[in-house]
Amino acid sequence: MTPEHGLRTRLLGIDTHAETVVFLRKDCSLCRSEGFTSHNRILLSAGDRHAIATLYQVESEFLGCDEAGLSDATGRALGVKEGDVITARHAPPVESLGLVRSRIYGHALDEQAFGRIIPDIVAGRYSAIEVTSFITACAAKPLTGDEVRFLTRAMVDAGNRLRWDQPVIADKHSVGGLPGNRTTPIVVAICAALGLVMPKTSSRAITSPAGTADTMETLAPVALDELALRAVIKQEGGCIAWGGAMRLSPADDILIRIEHALDIDSEGQMIASILSKKIAAGATHLVIDMPVGPTAKVRSIEAAASLTAGLAVVADAFGIHIKVMQGDGSQPIGRGIGPALEARDVLAVLKGQPDAPQDLRARALALASGLLELCGKADPGQGTTLASVTLDDGRAWSKFQHICAAQGGMRIPPQARHTKILAAGHGGVLEALDNRRIARLAKLAGAPYAKAAGVELHVRLGDRVSTGTPLCTLHAEAEGELAYALSYAEANPDMFGIT
Amino acid sequence: MTPEHGLRTRLLGIDTHAETVVFLRKDCSLCRSEGFTSHNRILLSAGDRHAIATLYQVESEFLGCDEAGLSDATGRALGVKEGDVITARHAPPVESLGLVRSRIYGHALDEQAFGRIIPDIVAGRYSAIEVTSFITACAAKPLTGDEVRFLTRAMVDAGNRLRWDQPVIADKHSVGGLPGNRTTPIVVAICAALGLVMPKTSSRAITSPAGTADTMETLAPVALDELALRAVIKQEGGCIAWGGAMRLSPADDILIRIEHALDIDSEGQMIASILSKKIAAGATHLVIDMPVGPTAKVRSIEAAASLTAGLAVVADAFGIHIKVMQGDGSQPIGRGIGPALEARDVLAVLKGQPDAPQDLRARALALASGLLELCGKADPGQGTTLASVTLDDGRAWSKFQHICAAQGGMRIPPQARHTKILAAGHGGVLEALDNRRIARLAKLAGAPYAKAAGVELHVRLGDRVSTGTPLCTLHAEAEGELAYALSYAEANPDMFGIT
Repeated sequence: MTPEHGLRTRLLGIDTHAETVVFLRKDCSLCRSEGFTSHNRILLSAGDRHAIATLYQVESEFLGCDEAGLSDATGRALGVKEGDVITARHAPPVESLGLVRSRIYGHALDEQAFGRIIPDIVAGRYSAIEVTSFITACAAKPLTGDEVRFLTRAMVDAGNRLRWDQPVIADKHSVGGLPGNRTTPIVVAICAALGLVMPKTSSRAITSPAGTADTMETLAPVALDELALRAVIKQEGGCIAWGGAMRLSPADDILIRIEHALDIDSEGQMIASILSKKIAAGATHLVIDMPVGPTAKVRSIEAAASLTAGLAVVADAFGIHIKVMQGDGSQPIGRGIGPALEARDVLAVLKGQPDAPQDLRARALALASGLLELCGKADPGQGTTLASVTLDDGRAWSKFQHICAAQGGMRIPPQARHTKILAAGHGGVLEALDNRRIARLAKLAGAPYAKAAGVELHVRLGDRVSTGTPLCTLHAEAEGELAYALSYAEANPDMFGIT
Repeated sequence: MTPEHGLRTRLLGIDTHAETVVFLRKDCSLCRSEGFTSHNRILLSAGDRHAIATLYQVESEFLGCDEAGLSDATGRALGVKEGDVITARHAPPVESLGLVRSRIYGHALDEQAFGRIIPDIVAGRYSAIEVTSFITACAAKPLTGDEVRFLTRAMVDAGNRLRWDQPVIADKHSVGGLPGNRTTPIVVAICAALGLVMPKTSSRAITSPAGTADTMETLAPVALDELALRAVIKQEGGCIAWGGAMRLSPADDILIRIEHALDIDSEGQMIASILSKKIAAGATHLVIDMPVGPTAKVRSIEAAASLTAGLAVVADAFGIHIKVMQGDGSQPIGRGIGPALEARDVLAVLKGQPDAPQDLRARALALASGLLELCGKADPGQGTTLASVTLDDGRAWSKFQHICAAQGGMRIPPQARHTKILAAGHGGVLEALDNRRIARLAKLAGAPYAKAAGVELHVRLGDRVSTGTPLCTLHAEAEGELAYALSYAEANPDMFGIT
């Protein structure tokens, strides 16, 4: 009895991140007969593939009455190409949303509940506002210790999980918020050179001027699939790959986008986010870099202590050995901010160049040392010496070159065509640096989209400067972007706090 | 120094409800130089008009690199036409979001905080996920009594407020959830006939098969502006108008859309929603119809008692006299479900036709009686008699006709071209009716979009039926819609619980 509601697909090339969106003409017979209105959730079907999408209704001619406009995420979910025929109807209720409502109304969730919510989120059955509601409910009435554990477990189970034969799998995570804090390639090179197995997967930038994967990509290919990653590990013991192709805790990728948009970071969700990725990657020993500072992600000693304790409890429940290493988060680390500029800092440290940024070197050595001791490669108190020697005698640099080769061939980071030095407008002592505005400056110059773009810092906290002392150099691939960053810098001279 | 980033507008005719959305090409120089990514919030400017919009990036040719595609809400907010030139840049941070985050993290909000959040929401400065976060935070950690009062005040202040010279302004609200519960036109006719001043503003359907404004529109024009509404009140003492043109508590329209999408109704927000609209409309005496039943909005006696108490406290704080009248919410009221079908029930009651639905008549009389007593037009216990007499002697019907004439001329509700009787598949007693699925059936038949469409019920709870007894008649304006509703009915025979 049901009329055939076939629609031809139009791939509109609209990037809506993970949210599946469909555009239909308001006056099409389907919208009328189904009583669809904008923001309804619609079940789309192409053969035996289905996707639930958020509807926006269209009243103009850019879409025909027999067409369904699909966002990128919707096209991917359905696996369709332009002009394929799909059907649409009201989406059946997503049962697990009842559990989210029950969380909102004050009931803690059990393991089974998270085990139903998270797979539905990963399958795209939640709209952005439904994901938001889940995240906010878990922040407004903080997750209990049990709930954090259940959430972590559900996030791990809803994705792929790498399993390794070796008993010790080393890993490293940075809580983030510090521009230029690009220690990962150095830590991996040192640890792998000493025989640790370290299959490091990293992310691209979401809101920062560069993620580790963006930086590493200027030095070697990073988009490895699981097979390629395993081959690199078998050969070199370490890698620095982009994790996105591996579906490790895919729920995290969806939740973190919304958390960024809302600018909320609840402790429980941060713990589940960090640990689910690492458990899925198969880590057994994990060092966590936690910069603490007024414009970093973790802003106080109290917040750092609480997060550290929470991480320890959940890691313990999953049998993972962790060491949290707090560090100074008051200013960027290294000189470069932006993929290629950071890569050059990394190379300078690995090659032992005399002009290598000492803060980056020191932080990388500290983290490598912590990991070596945690994994039993160095006796307590001996990690720093072992790491320093491995870096200074060239073994880490040699290992890094081999890793790059195994990942597909070493690359030379690109150089920006346009540069401009920003000088101090007055003399004094540099007493503060605003991490957030400096990150913004690098992004306006084109990072991470333009690999060579970003900011190269020439000063550190405590430096005495005079009028005209170079504070930083802007790097850009396009003249317009350079001008744009420059005008932002001129409007925000106080991102360098000189007094 | 800033390059001129002019973009030509394309009005895409996309309905995103209240959320302002802008589409830009991912590869346009603006996205690159500003470092925009999808879901960023962008400040658009057309002369001295501004709007903050959510960005979706486009990678296909349907948009040019120098074009900005605008959703309907964005075009309205900027007041632009196709081809106008606008500029775009990163939106400045919305300060009041910090207050929302503080609510999420457990701090109650004061009057000033709500006074900053609500105007920002009304001005479109919040994205849908930011509004969601606010709503969820206020549900997960329920609003205190003070907060409900502050929220109500802020919602009233953020819109227009009607002021009347008369000391008593009567009003009526129904908590909703019952299909066909269309008492308002009858209550207004009775009360206005007895000299009460009752400037009733109603809403259109959001998720139901008909709102009071949809039903009334089949009987008279309802889209009155404030001037027209005042003229009707001056002449007739009562009206039944659509409130949407009047900007009464516009925040409510935005919040309620998201609450519907999430299917959450927290008590505090429900109180602020109901009362802010009524305070803004200038009501001094208010009767609230609260159907209670397993598939109605208020599902238990306990929930009804708590909501009633909360309404009383806040109404008292604003000096409004209210009377909450709980009623049976176990089945639809009247026969018709859908704009024109409900209008015919209303006419039958007003005209005193012998076949008029008695449940609708009884409920309307009860509410009118309550309002008459509350306003001092009838002594306690005498309201029902007064209301009945006014209905039975034709004064209410006469007043209703005059109101329709004053609103622009009485109309005859349309009749559907296609009908189909649904008959009982087996005999027994009708023991349950599913309000939600019956509402869905009416929507599939085309209501409220197709004014004549909907469901006409022929049975009531407790009726004994045999195989073949007509249960209801489907009404549709298009054959396809009739077939579609029919197939839903056939797949859901248990929406009529015959045992």
